[in-house]
Amino acid sequence: MSVTSVPGFRANGIASGIKESGAPDLAMVATVDGAPVPAAGVFTSNLVAAAPVQISRRHLAKGQAAAVVINSGNANAATGEQGRADALRMCELTAQAVGCATSDVLVCQTGLIGIPMPMAPVEAGVPKLGALLTSDSDGGLAAARALMTTDTVPKTTRQHVDLPIRRGGTIGGMAKGAAMLAPSMATMLAVLATDVVIDSHRLTRALQTAVRDSFNALVVDACQSTNDTVLVLANGALGNEPIEGPAEYASFVDALTAACADLAQQMAHDAEGATKCVTLHVRGARNDHEARLAARQVASSQLVQCSLYGKDPYWGRIISELGVSGAVFDPEAVEITYGSHTVCRDGVACEHDELGVFELMQERDLRLLCDLHNGNGEATMLFTDLTHAYVDENMGTS
Amino acid sequence: MSVTSVPGFRANGIASGIKESGAPDLAMVATVDGAPVPAAGVFTSNLVAAAPVQISRRHLAKGQAAAVVINSGNANAATGEQGRADALRMCELTAQAVGCATSDVLVCQTGLIGIPMPMAPVEAGVPKLGALLTSDSDGGLAAARALMTTDTVPKTTRQHVDLPIRRGGTIGGMAKGAAMLAPSMATMLAVLATDVVIDSHRLTRALQTAVRDSFNALVVDACQSTNDTVLVLANGALGNEPIEGPAEYASFVDALTAACADLAQQMAHDAEGATKCVTLHVRGARNDHEARLAARQVASSQLVQCSLYGKDPYWGRIISELGVSGAVFDPEAVEITYGSHTVCRDGVACEHDELGVFELMQERDLRLLCDLHNGNGEATMLFTDLTHAYVDENMGTS
Repeated sequence: MSVTSVPGFRANGIASGIKESGAPDLAMVATVDGAPVPAAGVFTSNLVAAAPVQISRRHLAKGQAAAVVINSGNANAATGEQGRADALRMCELTAQAVGCATSDVLVCQTGLIGIPMPMAPVEAGVPKLGALLTSDSDGGLAAARALMTTDTVPKTTRQHVDLPIRRGGTIGGMAKGAAMLAPSMATMLAVLATDVVIDSHRLTRALQTAVRDSFNALVVDACQSTNDTVLVLANGALGNEPIEGPAEYASFVDALTAACADLAQQMAHDAEGATKCVTLHVRGARNDHEARLAARQVASSQLVQCSLYGKDPYWGRIISELGVSGAVFDPEAVEITYGSHTVCRDGVACEHDELGVFELMQERDLRLLCDLHNGNGEATMLFTDLTHAYVDENMGTS
Repeated sequence: MSVTSVPGFRANGIASGIKESGAPDLAMVATVDGAPVPAAGVFTSNLVAAAPVQISRRHLAKGQAAAVVINSGNANAATGEQGRADALRMCELTAQAVGCATSDVLVCQTGLIGIPMPMAPVEAGVPKLGALLTSDSDGGLAAARALMTTDTVPKTTRQHVDLPIRRGGTIGGMAKGAAMLAPSMATMLAVLATDVVIDSHRLTRALQTAVRDSFNALVVDACQSTNDTVLVLANGALGNEPIEGPAEYASFVDALTAACADLAQQMAHDAEGATKCVTLHVRGARNDHEARLAARQVASSQLVQCSLYGKDPYWGRIISELGVSGAVFDPEAVEITYGSHTVCRDGVACEHDELGVFELMQERDLRLLCDLHNGNGEATMLFTDLTHAYVDENMGTS
C-alpha cells in the first residue's frame, strides 16, 4: 500500500531535524537502479510557485526522472534565488545518493512560506536516507509518514491496472494534505509510481485527467498553494506492450484516477476539526463546466459550511450560492436534495420528512444533490464543514 | 443623521410582528406629498434574485419613485410566484398609505431565505406605519432601527453636497448589514435620499460609481446575496439648477460616495464577532481591475482572516493569495507592509521591527499594503477576521 507496492521502486523516510519537533520530515522515492524512467507532473497554478516547483518543472522538461526527494517542515516558498539554490542542492545530494543525474531528481517541499530553508539537516539527512532506501513495504510507509504536516494519518494507495498481461500492472502512491481543514500548511503533495510501460507524453495526459477528477474535485483547489505537486514515475518493470491503444490507455487512466481519488478521499476524512464530509453532486447544468462552477461555489461557501457544522439543512444558502456561481439556470426550476430528502423543488420549499432530515444531519458523511434542470452537465465535489477547530488550527503558524 | 435629514422626506419604523421577537421590522420612507421623484437603484447580481428585487427593478424602469417600504425578519427569497404577489401587495398597501401609484413604490426585504412571507403583520402594519410617517429625525432613526437583523446598532449618515447654491445640498441615508461577520442574513440594504435636482439617468450613474467604491469594496461582495439593494431618491427640494456640468456632477458623486462609504464603514465595524477591521490597499498592479482582483482574493481568504484573528503577521498567506488572484506580476518584486512595517520585500522576508509588528497586531484597526511593483493600478478593500464568533453566528438559522 504505497509506492513500494510497485516492483522496481525503493523508498524511505527519516527525521532529519528540519522539524524542531523531531518528527519525520525527509522522504525519498527512487528507481531500484537509479535509472531515469518516464515521469510526469501536475503543479500548482499559483503565480507564486515555490522554489521546488520551479526546479521540478525544469527537470521534468525531459519527461523523465529517477528519484523524488520530499521534505515537510518548510515550504521553501517566497525564498527567492537562495530558495532555488537550496532546492537544487537537495536534488544534487539526492542524485549522489541514488546514482543519477541531478536533473533526473524531482523535489517537493511543504511547510511554512517565507522562511529560509534550513540546509544543515538536508546536507546530513539526504545521504543517510539514500542509504536506507528499500523495496520493503516499510520503506513506502515511512516515506508517507515523512510527508505529514497537520495530517493525523499517513495516506497511501495501491491500485490494479487491468492490462492484457499476466496479472496486470500496479499503481502505488502516497500523499499529504488535510487540504481543506488544516491549511495552515495547505500544500497537497502526492507521489505515484507504476510498473507499466508508457511514454511520458501519455503519462502526462493521464495524470492531468486523473488530477482533475480527484484532487481538483476537493473544494480547496489542489492547484492553488505555492507548492502543490502531483508526480508519477513509470518504470516499465511490468514489461507490457507500451500503452498506446485506447482500451489500454483508458484502463490506465481509470486506475490512476482511482489511485488519486483514494488519496483525495483520505485527505477529506483527515481534515482536522471537520465534523462533516459532504459529497456534493450538481446535475442538470448546461454543461460540465458550469456544473463544476456551481459545485465549487456551493462547496467553497463559508455560510454553507457553517450551516453543515450546525446540522442545519438551510438550503436557502445553497440556492443563493448557485445563483452567483456563473452557471445559467432558471431559479424556479432548482431542486435541492439532502440524502434522499428533497427540501426544495421548483426553487421553493417543498413538503419533506423533517424528522428524517434532522436524523440525516447528525451523520458525518452526507450526500447533497442540486439539480438545475437545464441540461446534462454534472460535477461532483467533496468538501467539509467550517468549525471552531478550523479557526483554532489556522490562527497561528506555530 | 438619516433620510429625514433631507428636507422633503418622511420616514418611520415599527414592530409589525413579522419578527417573532417583537423587534422593529417594518420601515417606510416617502416624499412629503407622495409625489414621485427621480430614483435609482443598484441590485444584487445574484441570478436567484428575491421577489422584492424583481418587483423593485420593474418599478424602477420608469426612473422614479415616491416611497420605499422595507421589512426585516423575512427575505421573501426563493418563494416563487407567491413571493412576487406578496412583494407587490406590500407596494400596493404602501401606495394607499402614501397616496401614490403602486408602481411608484420600491420594496426591500431581508431575513431568512425560502420561507413564505407572513402577510398578516404586513396588512395591518403598513397602513399603521403610513400614518406615522414624519419629517422629524426620530422618524429617520426609527426607520433605520427597523432594518436591523444581526446588526447591533442602526446605521445612518448625512453628507453635504457642495453646490453653488445657498448652503449646498444634503444626502441622508440608512443601511443594514453586518455583511461580513453575521451573514446568516447576509443581505445589505441601503436607502438614500437627497434634495438636489438631478435626473434619474445621472442619478443611476452616480449611484453605480458610489456603490463600487464603497459597499462593493467590502470583502463580501455587496451584490451577492439574493436581496442586496441600494436605492436613492432625489426630490429636488433644493431647487438648484439641474446637475449637468462635470463639476456639479463630480460634487454630487463625491458626496454620494462619502454617504455610502460612511455606511459601509459602519457595517464593517458592526461585524459581529470581528476582532479586526482591516483596510487593505493594493498598488502597483497593471491596472485598477487587477488591483481589485488581488485585493478581493486576499481579503476573502479564510486563511488570511484566521491569521489576523490570531494576531499573526503571516505574510506568506498573503503572497500566496496574490499569486492566484489573476493579477499579473513578478513574485520577486512584491512588497508587503503591515502598518508602517515592511515585512516582505522583493518577494522574500526582510528585516523588520518584530516588536513593532507584534504591537501593531494587537490593534483592532489595521492597514495592510501590497505593492506589486508592476504598474499604477490600485484598489482598497475593507475586511474583517474569521473568528469563533463568526462560526457560532452562522451555525444555525435561529
